[in-house]
Amino acid sequence: MPAGNKQIKILGIDPGFADTGFGVVLRDGSKLKCLDYGSIKTSKALSLSERIEKLENELQKIIKKHRPDQASVEQLFFCTNIKTAISVAQARGVILLTIIKNKIPLLECTPLQVKQAVTGYGKADKKQVQQMVKIILGLKEIPKPDDAADALAMAICGANNIRAIK
Amino acid sequence: MPAGNKQIKILGIDPGFADTGFGVVLRDGSKLKCLDYGSIKTSKALSLSERIEKLENELQKIIKKHRPDQASVEQLFFCTNIKTAISVAQARGVILLTIIKNKIPLLECTPLQVKQAVTGYGKADKKQVQQMVKIILGLKEIPKPDDAADALAMAICGANNIRAIK
Repeated sequence: MPAGNKQIKILGIDPGFADTGFGVVLRDGSKLKCLDYGSIKTSKALSLSERIEKLENELQKIIKKHRPDQASVEQLFFCTNIKTAISVAQARGVILLTIIKNKIPLLECTPLQVKQAVTGYGKADKKQVQQMVKIILGLKEIPKPDDAADALAMAICGANNIRAIK
Repeated sequence: MPAGNKQIKILGIDPGFADTGFGVVLRDGSKLKCLDYGSIKTSKALSLSERIEKLENELQKIIKKHRPDQASVEQLFFCTNIKTAISVAQARGVILLTIIKNKIPLLECTPLQVKQAVTGYGKADKKQVQQMVKIILGLKEIPKPDDAADALAMAICGANNIRAIK
């Protein structure tokens, strides 16, 4: 099989502590196909240790099921709410360590890169990105919840990046 | 041996991405003894993945060497610099997951709790805390670097907390 037709699985992650979106996209030559998506939820009723353990366990299951060749995780910049930023960054640390321990090459995507990769326009809004995720992956509906759609956008960005590198 | 005289090892952590302070304190009855302290450094010359891997590897070595019964990690609240806050919180996620995977009970200490535990005064400054760490642990000098001294203060706070619970 020529290198250009090699199948590559990309795991996209939209990090969060209460909700972490994930999306798995298969790049088959120049085609992109959605394999899986969803959200890992950790309840506020659990202790900090239990929540971190759950996040890691669920992510391990997804990695074991799909064996992704690459992971794309959103870079964090925002500070609308410092408490949220700290909580998301902490979850991101848990997610990155889990990915790295599984020896999956890591790509960081900025929100700008994701928007450009998916819509060709760095200032696209959330709805436009979600609409394009649906079209690019040939889905019947916009994936729900929002963080799963964002994670698929991240995976598409990762897939485009492979194309750019090769 | 009566329960009150049980020896307990507490690992204190002052999280950071470039520098993570650690300190190991043995609580033997009502006495506290310093077993180890230092700083885990990750160079900016390394990739994100390499830095996270190094932080986890070094922490694993410390845990393997001392087998702590409890870990005390500082809670994050600050926002003097959002980029730093995100970076520290991400490192904290890596540290918490490593502690939890080793099944070490986790205690979070606020800066106020640490100051109160070490100096009896919630508004103590950094120098006063370091001076008291030296006195409480019977050290000849104030531990260096600063994040190692902070980590020992965290471990002392953890040890006091055990006393309070029992």
